[in-house]
Amino acid sequence: MPTTEQLTVAVHNYIESFNAPDIDRLVGLFADNAKVEDPVGTEPKAGHAAIREFYTMSTGMGAKLHLDGPVCATGADYVAYVMHVIVPMETRMRFDVIETFRVNDDGKITEMRAFFGNDNIRPATDTE
Amino acid sequence: MPTTEQLTVAVHNYIESFNAPDIDRLVGLFADNAKVEDPVGTEPKAGHAAIREFYTMSTGMGAKLHLDGPVCATGADYVAYVMHVIVPMETRMRFDVIETFRVNDDGKITEMRAFFGNDNIRPATDTE
Repeated sequence: MPTTEQLTVAVHNYIESFNAPDIDRLVGLFADNAKVEDPVGTEPKAGHAAIREFYTMSTGMGAKLHLDGPVCATGADYVAYVMHVIVPMETRMRFDVIETFRVNDDGKITEMRAFFGNDNIRPATDTE
Repeated sequence: MPTTEQLTVAVHNYIESFNAPDIDRLVGLFADNAKVEDPVGTEPKAGHAAIREFYTMSTGMGAKLHLDGPVCATGADYVAYVMHVIVPMETRMRFDVIETFRVNDDGKITEMRAFFGNDNIRPATDTE
């Protein structure tokens, strides 16, 4: 079972490497056979190649992640956190998102799920 | 698939009936065969009888739920939200928790998972 520290560090490393962006580091946070379901309800991106393609696209749009609340590391192999994403499209957009990671004993993410829907997307204010 | 409104209403009904407390209404929000994994990593409470026992205990302690951020209703059958729980033990305690529901086409919760661990528990301040 991963430790509380491994779970918490996985979240902070994910946000840091996404925002850098450092795609090699970001993909390296995932186990080889990991699945990314973003948003929940869509076909998961499975494995490093698909995960790399997904994050190359999303970081390439200039998206930045901002942690908004507690990192909820369970006593098991799951951690959840709440954040918002700012995406500089023609109109700057804000996405409010809750994400869960499942993490293995090596501290690698095996499953990521991003919970959000249409009601969580709106134009960002100037100060966001 | 449940609608965004069904997903969002499930969360608000859950918090309202928990805080009332109205155990019959609370248990009635769950499908007959629902599972409650609270916290994640513990054996799920399965079915209405076990769920009733669990919530009778937790509401009996005087716990109250406070929604803290966005309700993240996906385009699928999942919704996630962040909240804190105040529990009036000898010392009033605060638990920061992220919860996910899976909801069926009738708007009933079939799975609830509560993500938190030791790092999310601390004495509440006087104003919390």
